Amino acid sequence: MIILGLDPGLGTTGWGVIRAEGNRLSHLANGRLRTDTAGSLAKRLAHLDAMLAALFADHAPDAAAVEEVFVNANGQSTLKLGQARGVALLAVARAGLEPGEYAPSIVKKAVVGVGAADKPQVHAMVARLLPGTKIAGPDAADALAVAICHAHHLATARRVIR
Amino acid sequence: MIILGLDPGLGTTGWGVIRAEGNRLSHLANGRLRTDTAGSLAKRLAHLDAMLAALFADHAPDAAAVEEVFVNANGQSTLKLGQARGVALLAVARAGLEPGEYAPSIVKKAVVGVGAADKPQVHAMVARLLPGTKIAGPDAADALAVAICHAHHLATARRVIR
Repeated sequence: MIILGLDPGLGTTGWGVIRAEGNRLSHLANGRLRTDTAGSLAKRLAHLDAMLAALFADHAPDAAAVEEVFVNANGQSTLKLGQARGVALLAVARAGLEPGEYAPSIVKKAVVGVGAADKPQVHAMVARLLPGTKIAGPDAADALAVAICHAHHLATARRVIR
Repeated sequence: MIILGLDPGLGTTGWGVIRAEGNRLSHLANGRLRTDTAGSLAKRLAHLDAMLAALFADHAPDAAAVEEVFVNANGQSTLKLGQARGVALLAVARAGLEPGEYAPSIVKKAVVGVGAADKPQVHAMVARLLPGTKIAGPDAADALAVAICHAHHLATARRVIR
């Protein structure tokens, strides 16, 4: 099963694709989708949308998960992130998939073991769970962590159903 | 020139289409796009996206404007609105247009004359500026107001350029 994880953002959206076979996870690809900060909001969203469509076409994931946005006191930041996240969720739905959605603390707990882990800990643990992976940056590490979290969730769901 | 105005929301997106010929404005159509509150977030965004695509195909607007989201203290509401607004902006960009973006206070000032106008005032003034229009509801009235505001803005821009 091929699982895509996304860590959406207007400037940078991290992505990671893994293969899950039973409890075995392996890395397929990861990277960052970047939009031009000089472009208009609508153009940036359209660019993000086109890059996401290419990502789904390239990797044909069987499942996808999107990190939940951290809602902070700055409404403008939340709005910006929300707009990018809307485009990311739309891309998943358009591929005929129902996205898994996980709060950052759930993702960290799944990967590192504690919900309050920092970015270097997530990066290190992702690198350990997927040996030999060259990680494109913190957003890509987060996206791989989201994919791993979703793989665990799906495996647990299967065990419960049996 | 055909101008589409949008007042985006996850549950209800108001829309209004007007024709602007010089300073003369006339109503073409208005309505509401509603998504099923029982559906998942991704499915609702995909449904909104499909309805917006149909709207652009039906009316082939030459210009479009999207109301800015009111950022309030409730981060979750801002996030929800942001996700719907991202999909609306994407629809405009996909139609090859650069959306006008106006804060609610600017829209009210353009239509009613004061930035603090309430919804019934906006509704009444839109009905007066576009006589004979049957307005589908407050969201549709807001969307028509956004289209009127954009028409004024474009007319002023043309005057300045000459």
